Formats: sequence, C-alpha cells, structure tokens
Amino acid sequence: MSKLNKLFNPQSIAIVGASQERGKVGNVITRNILELGYAGKIFLVNPKHEKLFDQRTFKSLTDITEKVDLAIIVLPSKIVVPVIREASDKIKNFVVISAGFSETDAEGKAREEELKKLAEEKDLNILGPNCLGFIIPKLKLNASFAGGMPQAGNISFVSQSGALAVAIMDIARKENIKFANIISVGNKMQLSEAEVLEYLENDESTKVVGMYLEGIENGQKFIEVASRVAQKKPVVILKAGKTEKAQKAISSHTGALAGSNEIMDAVFEKAGVLRAENLEEFFALIETMSVASAPKEKGVAIITNAGGPGVLTTDAFGGKTIELVNLSEETKKSLRAFLPAESSVENPIDLLGDAMEDRYEKALEVLEQDEKIGAILCVLTAQDQTPVGKIVSKIVEFKNRTNKMVATIFIGGERVEKEIARLHENEVPNFVFPDEAVNALNDYYVWNENRKEVVANRKEFVVNIARQAEVSKIIAKVKKEKRTALSFSEASDVAKMYGIATPAVSNLTVDDDLPEIAKFSVVMKVDSDKVLHKTDKQGVILNIKNQEELQQAQAQMKVNFPGENLIIQEMLSIKTELIMGIKQDSIFGPIVVYGLGGIYTEVFKMVNFLVPPLNLAEIKKSLMRSKIKFLFEETRGQKAHNADEMAQMLLGVSELAQEIADIKELDINPVLIYNDGKSAVAVDVKIIVG
Amino acid sequence: MSKLNKLFNPQSIAIVGASQERGKVGNVITRNILELGYAGKIFLVNPKHEKLFDQRTFKSLTDITEKVDLAIIVLPSKIVVPVIREASDKIKNFVVISAGFSETDAEGKAREEELKKLAEEKDLNILGPNCLGFIIPKLKLNASFAGGMPQAGNISFVSQSGALAVAIMDIARKENIKFANIISVGNKMQLSEAEVLEYLENDESTKVVGMYLEGIENGQKFIEVASRVAQKKPVVILKAGKTEKAQKAISSHTGALAGSNEIMDAVFEKAGVLRAENLEEFFALIETMSVASAPKEKGVAIITNAGGPGVLTTDAFGGKTIELVNLSEETKKSLRAFLPAESSVENPIDLLGDAMEDRYEKALEVLEQDEKIGAILCVLTAQDQTPVGKIVSKIVEFKNRTNKMVATIFIGGERVEKEIARLHENEVPNFVFPDEAVNALNDYYVWNENRKEVVANRKEFVVNIARQAEVSKIIAKVKKEKRTALSFSEASDVAKMYGIATPAVSNLTVDDDLPEIAKFSVVMKVDSDKVLHKTDKQGVILNIKNQEELQQAQAQMKVNFPGENLIIQEMLSIKTELIMGIKQDSIFGPIVVYGLGGIYTEVFKMVNFLVPPLNLAEIKKSLMRSKIKFLFEETRGQKAHNADEMAQMLLGVSELAQEIADIKELDINPVLIYNDGKSAVAVDVKIIVG
Repeated sequence: MSKLNKLFNPQSIAIVGASQERGKVGNVITRNILELGYAGKIFLVNPKHEKLFDQRTFKSLTDITEKVDLAIIVLPSKIVVPVIREASDKIKNFVVISAGFSETDAEGKAREEELKKLAEEKDLNILGPNCLGFIIPKLKLNASFAGGMPQAGNISFVSQSGALAVAIMDIARKENIKFANIISVGNKMQLSEAEVLEYLENDESTKVVGMYLEGIENGQKFIEVASRVAQKKPVVILKAGKTEKAQKAISSHTGALAGSNEIMDAVFEKAGVLRAENLEEFFALIETMSVASAPKEKGVAIITNAGGPGVLTTDAFGGKTIELVNLSEETKKSLRAFLPAESSVENPIDLLGDAMEDRYEKALEVLEQDEKIGAILCVLTAQDQTPVGKIVSKIVEFKNRTNKMVATIFIGGERVEKEIARLHENEVPNFVFPDEAVNALNDYYVWNENRKEVVANRKEFVVNIARQAEVSKIIAKVKKEKRTALSFSEASDVAKMYGIATPAVSNLTVDDDLPEIAKFSVVMKVDSDKVLHKTDKQGVILNIKNQEELQQAQAQMKVNFPGENLIIQEMLSIKTELIMGIKQDSIFGPIVVYGLGGIYTEVFKMVNFLVPPLNLAEIKKSLMRSKIKFLFEETRGQKAHNADEMAQMLLGVSELAQEIADIKELDINPVLIYNDGKSAVAVDVKIIVG
Repeated sequence: MSKLNKLFNPQSIAIVGASQERGKVGNVITRNILELGYAGKIFLVNPKHEKLFDQRTFKSLTDITEKVDLAIIVLPSKIVVPVIREASDKIKNFVVISAGFSETDAEGKAREEELKKLAEEKDLNILGPNCLGFIIPKLKLNASFAGGMPQAGNISFVSQSGALAVAIMDIARKENIKFANIISVGNKMQLSEAEVLEYLENDESTKVVGMYLEGIENGQKFIEVASRVAQKKPVVILKAGKTEKAQKAISSHTGALAGSNEIMDAVFEKAGVLRAENLEEFFALIETMSVASAPKEKGVAIITNAGGPGVLTTDAFGGKTIELVNLSEETKKSLRAFLPAESSVENPIDLLGDAMEDRYEKALEVLEQDEKIGAILCVLTAQDQTPVGKIVSKIVEFKNRTNKMVATIFIGGERVEKEIARLHENEVPNFVFPDEAVNALNDYYVWNENRKEVVANRKEFVVNIARQAEVSKIIAKVKKEKRTALSFSEASDVAKMYGIATPAVSNLTVDDDLPEIAKFSVVMKVDSDKVLHKTDKQGVILNIKNQEELQQAQAQMKVNFPGENLIIQEMLSIKTELIMGIKQDSIFGPIVVYGLGGIYTEVFKMVNFLVPPLNLAEIKKSLMRSKIKFLFEETRGQKAHNADEMAQMLLGVSELAQEIADIKELDINPVLIYNDGKSAVAVDVKIIVG
C-alpha cells in the first residue's frame, strides 16, 4: 500500500486555523470539509475559540487525544514549523496551505528547508506548502479552499497552479467532467509530480492522470515513475514554459526551473506520457480518455449530415497517424443499399442534410462490420428537420454495444446544446470543432500503440566495469593535470571503447620531425585542450597535398601554437556530416544529442534528443522518425545510409553517458557517414570533464 | 452602384414554389419571408393554388403586373430554366434554391449550362443554383430555408456549404455574433466568391468578410477582387481541401476543384486575405474583427489573477509576430505602487488570486500610458472571492475609452458564463483558451500591417513588346518543328532576355569534330527535347578533365544518343544549388516557384510559391521569410548570398510567365549561387510550350 494512502484517504482530519470568519481561507476549508458530506471525524483547532461551528475546538493538535490521519495547516507561515513539530510524533500527514515559503524570499526558503528536514526526520508526508489542498469527490472530501464538490469519476488532476485547478473544476461542472482526485502540489517541497504519480499508479479510481506542471522536480525519478504509470493509464501533461518568456514567468510565478522545452519533449516521449500542446488539447484529451477506450485500429470513418463540416473534419487528418479509412467495396455496397443516390459512400460518408436518425443508425451498423475501423466520428449540424435527440439516442445505443470508439462533433448553438449535454451524460465524447476531435483521437491511439512498443523495447543497462575503469584512468590523469578537456588522442581512445571509430592519426609536436606520409591529402590539427574550437582559430589546416605543404603547415602551427601537440589525419571525403554528443541537462542529467552537421545543424534546427538508458530499437525508431530520416531512405536515386551503424554509435554515446558520470560534455563533430559501403568515422571528438 | 444591389436589397420578392405544406423547402422560405419582418412587397407564385397564407397567389411570374426585384425559385430542376426564361424580360434577379444541376450528372450539367447562357443573354443575376439562399438581418429578410433571424451586425458570411451556414447561425445566436449578410453561393454558376466579394466591397454594413470555400472559380479575378477588398476590410477565408482526401471529398461534395493547398496559401498571402487554419480559428477571427479594431502596435500586455493561465497565455506567443512587451521601468514602478509585494510586475502581470476589480482597473490605467502596447489581454479565473461582474464592468469601461485593443480570456464554467455574455454584449472579444486569443490578435495585427505593405508594393506590369516578339519567334519555330521542348540553346537565349545568366557553351552534334577546350574541367550534355531528364538517362557526363576524356565522352554519347546535339559547358564549382521555375496552376495560371535544389528540394519540401505580377520588394520579402532565408543571412561564419541578385532572377521568371502565355513549364535546375562575389548562373534551363 502506498505511503500516501492515509494522506489521501483520511479517516479523521484536523483543521489547524479553522475559522468562522467569512472570507478567510481557514473558513472556506473548514466549511468545505464540514458541509460537503465528508464522513470521517473532523477536529477543529484554534487556540482563540472554545467552539466553532457548534463544535468543540481544540487549542492545539496535541490536545486531540483521538487518532488524526491528516492535519490541514492554515496558519501564518512563521508558526507552521513549530506547530507541525509539536504534533509530529502522533500525526504523520499534513497539507500545508500556508504561503510564505520558498516562493517568497530567503527567509521563506530557510523556513521550507526546515520543514523539509522535519518531514524527513519524522517520516511525515507533507503536501505543499503554498498549495490549494486536495479534493476527493468519492469521499465527499474537499480539503481545499476552492469551493464546491465535483462529481466523482476517474480523472485525477494534479496541478502546480491552484487557480487552474479552480478554473478546471468550474469548467467540469458544465461539461460533466468527473474526478477521482484533484491535487494541488504547491511548492512540491516533498511531494512532487513523481510522488503523486506514484500514488495514483495504484489508485484504483484513477483511470486518467492529467497534470499541469511548470517545472519538474527530480528528473530521473520522474522518468522512472512516469514510464511505469503510463504503461497502465494515460498520463497527460500540460507543461508550461515552451517559450523563453514563459520560462521567465514561471520562475516568478512558482520559482520553478522550467527546463529545456525540446528535452522535455524527448523525456515525455521516452516515458510514454502525452504532452498536451495547450489547455484546450489538455481538456479534450482528459475528457476523451475518461469516458472512452483508445481506438484499436488507426482507421477512422466519418458520417455526417453536412458536407462542408465533413470536408473540414477530413482536413484535420493531415499529418496524423490515424487516418480516414478507405471503405471496402462491401461496406460501400451496404451503405448504398439504404442511402439516397446523391449521398457519398466514400469516407467521409455524406448522409445528406435531410438525414433522419435511421440513416445514422444504419450507417453505424454497416461500419460496425468493417474491421479496419477503430473509431467512428459522427458529424452533425442541426438543419431545420434534423431530429437531433433521436440521432443522439441511436449513437448512444450503438456506443454501448460496439468495441469501436465513437465520438461526435455537433456544430451549433441552441439547437444542439441540450443534446450535447446528453452525449456527455452518456459518456460519448463530443467535440466543438473537428480539429480538436481528430487531435484527441490521434493522441489517444498513439499513446496506446506507443506503450506496447515501450514494453517491447525495455532492457536493463549493464555497466561494463572493465571499460568504465579504463576510461576513469584516463579522466583521472586529465584531472590530475588540472585539465578539463581530453586531448584528441585521449578522447579518441575513449570513443573507440564505445564502438565509435576515429581516423588513424600521427601524433607529434610542433617541433618534432615530420613523419613520412604514405597517402595524401592529409589534415593537420592542433591537439590541445586550450584550442577546442580549432576551426575558428586556424588550428586546422585542410587538404595538405604533399610533404612540402606538410612542412609549411607545421611551420605555421609553430608560429600560432608554440609548444603544442599536433595530429595528422588522412583527409576524408565528405559525403554527409552529422553531429552527435552528450549534453548535461540540469533536470534530467545526461541527454544524447544527434543531428545534421555542418551549416545545416543551426539552420534547420535539426537536433534530436534521446534520453538514456537506450537500446538499439529505441534509437532506430528515433532515427527513422527524425528529420534526418531521409538519409536512411533511398531518395531520388541516392542510396540509403546505414541506420544500424548510426544507431550503434549512438548506443555507444548513451552507454558512455551512463558509465562515466564525470563527462560534462561530449561533442563529436563531424561524424562522416557514407552510403557507398564506407564505414562511418568520427573526425573530431571533444570531451569535457568536471 | 453594384449590379447586385437589387438582388441583395430587393423592394419586392416573388417566391416561385411557395407552399403551405410543412416540411417542404418552399414552405420554409415562404414563412421566413412572410413572418420574420421583411418590409417589402411579397408575391407568392404557385399554379395549383388561388390563395396561400391568406394571400393572393399568382399562377406564374408573368402574371405579376407589379415590379418584382427578386424571384426566388424553389421548383423541380427541370422546369427552372423555362420559368426563368419566361420572366426574364421583366425580372433580372433570381435565387435558384433548386438542386439537380451541375452537382449531379451530365443532364444536370447541361441544365446549368443552359441557365448560365440564359443569364448572359438576358443580363440576369442568378445566385445558385443548389443553394440555401441568403439572409440580410438589417432588412429582416431571410430568403433562405434556414430558420430564424440572426442579429443585424457587420459580418458578412459567404458559404459554399449550406449546412455550415446553418450551423454558424446557430452558434451566432449563442455567442452574440451579428451579421450584415449571410450568402450561400451553392454551385456558383454565375455569382462566385469573386462577384459576391465585389458586392461586399462597397456594402457599407459589412466590416468583416468571412468565407467558407471548397474551390475557387476564377483564379485571376479572385486575386484581383480579393486584393482590392482586403485593403478595405478584413477578408477571412476558411478554405477546405488542405489534404488529398479532403480534396476528393470536396469533389464529391460540390464537384469543385479544390486546388493546390500551397498555391492557395501563396494566393491568399498575395491578396492580403487571412486564411483561417480551421473552423475554430475562423470563428475567433470574424468575431474579434467584428467588434474590435486591429492592434496598432505589436506589443501586448497580459494582466491576470491566475499565475498558471498567465504562463500558458505567455507560451501561446511562441512563433508569433505580436509579442509580450517588455514593460518600461516607469510602467513597472506605477504597477508596484498599488500591487502587493508578491505580485509580478513583469509581463504577464500577476495581480494575484485575491485581486478585486480595483487591481484590474488600476493596472489597465497604467498600461494605457505605455505607447508600446497595442493590445491588453485580461486573463481571469474565478476564485471564490473574485468579483467577476465588477471586473467586467471595469474592463468594459476601459475598452470604451482606450485606443488599445482589449480582449479577455475568462477560463471557467458557471462562474464566468454570465459575465462572458456581458463581455460579448459590450463588444469585448472573449476567448475560451489562451492560444485562440493570441492567434486571433496576431492574425489581425499581421493583416493590418500587411495591407500597408501591399499598397506600398503595388506596381503595374508593363509588357516588353520587343522581348515578347523575340521569344514568340523562337517558340513559333519550336512549334513548327512539332516540338514541345526548347533546346538548351533556345531556352538559354530566352533566359538571357530575362536577365538569367547561363554558362557559355559549345554546340555540336555527336558526330562533329570536337572543339579545342581552353579550360577544363567541362561537362558534356545531350541537348535534345527528347532527353529532358538528362541525369537519369546518363545524358550528362561531368568532370571531364582533358581532351582525351572529352573524346571518350563524345563516343559514349554517340552510342547512347545517336544523331543528337551536344553541348559542352564549363564545369562549375557548386556552392549552393537552387531551383526556380514556372508552374501552370489550373485555377490561378502561371505561378513562380523557387527553393533549395539538389537532394534537399524534396527532403525538406522547401519549395516556395509566388503569384505574378511581382515586383522586387515583394520577391525580396518572400525570400527573407522563406525557409531558405538563411542563405541570405550571415550564419556561423558563412557569408550571406546575394538576395538582390536572386530576387532579380525571380523577377525575370515572373515577367517571362506573364509575357509568354505559351509557356507550360519552366524549370531552371540548378541555379548555382555563390557568396564569394561570383555571379549566379542557371546551369540548366528547360522550357516546355503548348
């Protein structure tokens, strides 16, 4: 059983700071708990009163002799810690509503540190501080200062914004959205998204998890928990901070570090979590997932009584994984059998403007037989003669007996409003606009498919201890010499251990005698940690064609880089330049990066991120979905490059990132890859340690 | 005065096919005209009745002796033409509701042809056939079979889908959207989008034009009219057919040719028309434009009582032209003067959850002073204590006295619903979601800025008659020889006349003696209209280094292409490959195309379209907004390529497209451009005539 079970399913609650004074937060919470139907024991604590709400009031938590599962603290921030400390031997679960902690100033930060220490010492569970509280409709428990009691259902909403939770409850009342839990995490001092998600994993009333997050607390733990939970139930995250300005606003709103948006995307994809693009999509997803199962096939059929809206819905499928199915001849024949001649029996199926409920009913029956169809979208506008109510009845009847997903797009106002409410009541997802519907269906289908893949791909990473030791020796030497960068020769040795080939080199200094080169052209480079950006500082001389030019090159190097080491490499023909490497993310640790090299890296922003641990299948999937997938396909007479070879190199990079914690940055640029049978080669490898 | 003035402002209307039988289209229309308040004369026509609706009923249109401005025809398709013909000397304006014309079969097509001919002969204005009719709320005239009377306002909605018009009227009732005209164009036989748009241009009650289109009838006329109208009032088009499947659905829905989606984009941009991405955006745009003026500055300020929603609104600005303004120190100081210390006075301005109306009021007053702000977005969620009504009053008051655009995003359900209705009544645009709001503001701002540019750029194109004659001579020769393709030498001559440089060449045949080449390497190519895709068929031999290799090349060509002409060109160094050309579009005629060449053309889908006539400023604007703009900027030490040179070449292509109607296709591939001072050169030029 989860450690948080008592916190979110308390048999008894104490409210510290209970108040009868209207407008006070302590008043709202007390009334919410007293008046909305909570069946457990309730203790009011307030040293200034003998009685509140006609109930005995305790001077302090320690005065309560009975068992208290949960204490809700609504006190000035300064006295929160002593009050909790005093009770902490007997009471283990707290919600700290009070603001005035790390979201404010240094004093507040210190206060939060103290509270956190106390929680660890006494093994407490503390939600907040600076939070709205939580609401469990099934228990009729509103332990928050938001008003009202949502309907009990299967959505758990976790929010880093109290105001958004309030707004969502308000919308929910209107749209028949039902909740298992609404949890405001506030400053996430001890219980962050990962801990709450872990609790919801085994909360049986939760079918769908929706989260609004501004930052992520513990990256590695989040990935681990989210990956596990997303296998069992859909996790939809609205992650704010896509733009720089929003990241700034987040830091002033909750003090959170928003993190890199692209890496966030990579993490969510890795974990199998769905990221909602915006608030609208977030709603559409949690609503849909709450009432319907994921489409089992990617084929979708549209039936409509309105040609234009049918076409607009068709357009919404552009770029999606789900697709408008090509109807079988049999299906078309069955449709033709009862539809007027002017109808279209191609998908979208046009039932025409004068369609009564029978056409919807029969069309649904026909489509039920088509195994390629995973979902049916019923599009409707209310013409004067349209029997909207009867059509809804037919759709609901059909939904209750089919395995296909059924959703509706009813476009209109007064004429459809009442019937849309009936659709909601009967758990048919209805969408106001076509794009919203197609997006939600697509995301739901993709999530469901994705989690199958994630399971198939899972593999434990085993550290290669011998290799790790060897690299550590090199790094120890670098550190001892007070360097932060490995020389090319060192970096090259490391790379080779991870299956990344580098070109053969001759090592020498600017003062050494030159070796006799068998095969020109060659390149001469400075090999020094002080000259990391070699090209910029003329530390690379390309296309040296003979021994004489080589001599000139060395002479030039001697002037520009006295006393430094040099390397001589074969000049390789350039076919396709890639980059790959490791970037340390402040939230998630080492991230593998790859993309097109040369000028195109920046121009086309074609950098892709991968989150270790990785396996070959996962990397290859990423490659074949990335913007550089064209390199691994035959295009216009160009032969395909070897995706397996590339995946193998990236796996090496990933293993290096995992085995060697000291690596601050790895930058392989360029990696030359070929489509004529030649092997890939990492021309330059930079490793920074720290 | 417009030719369509009588049609849309009739003093008297005859309904042919009037009926008292419920459920019939003729009944709905008759009641709509009789019962909803139309003040003009009404004549009912039905040979089977003496009286209908207690009113004298005429046997035929010719029986009416008084003046009839408009006749509405609700008859079986077969008798539509004779009925109109009979009346056509006296009555000039018709709405043909009847279906059964070109949207059906060959017979229907013939019927429509006949009707069209009649219209031309007798100088009639016919809306439809196969349409819903039209509605002019100001006149209380509902000449359609959609029920109800929308409120009179300033939006004109033109729809190629009757069902969508019905749905939009239904939504409008709920959302307080008010219309000047609702016009269903049906088969667009005579009155298509261009003609209706032309009418709306001078319709004083129309402030905003919204159109749902599946196809476009007369491309050139549309561009001409839309460009003119969009100067005066915003034209928002929801153009269906973005995807192939939707294009197919359109063809079975209205029989229209949907046209290329990318070219449609180019045309709309050229005309200064706004394209709504989807139905949701369409609504948001027409609603906003109906009640508010365009933001005059691109700076936007957000004030919010909810941190999370404020951050989400900030995120919505990603990739937009409008931007969150950096508040001046003065503004921040003024905000700090009345806001609590925990508030954020950075944009988004966080008024905090306990904000009463005074904070909104004062914040608006402060922002009014900041000249960099063009629009203010008021974001709100209803906390328990939030005085939503009072805040709305303050916002409305402020809106009525400011020149800045004011819009709201009220997120919630019951708690905000009533007040959102008040915002609508008071003409403050409210949005349900942040992204919707920011999109609408951005599009409105961009449209307004764009139309200034369009005027500045306008220039008449003057045909160069001498050049035209010279090219025509070449083409005449090609046609006489029954060829469809120009030889390279011919195409090269044409290109040069339009300022497009081609490399120097030697012309010979496979059997001629080889010339003495001064400068190797060279390229040998077959120059034949039969071998247009030279590379594929080994009709190009590259990198010929000396006279001996040249001889071998010729020998090989002789085997592969006996009797053909050859050219020898200098082998040019490749820096950057582009393509440019002319594509004939079935709707809009010649379109100029350009993009990145080589493998990247297809991989990155980096083709851009331009619609002639063009001028240099316009082309350069396109270049600097295109995906290849990076070529014309300094990037990572790469020098910029010459955008002026590129624009000049594209201008040549555009002029060629306009001067020479015979050109079916022009394909310049590659154009080599340099960033080291070398001039651009068109290595291969293909011209197909027909």
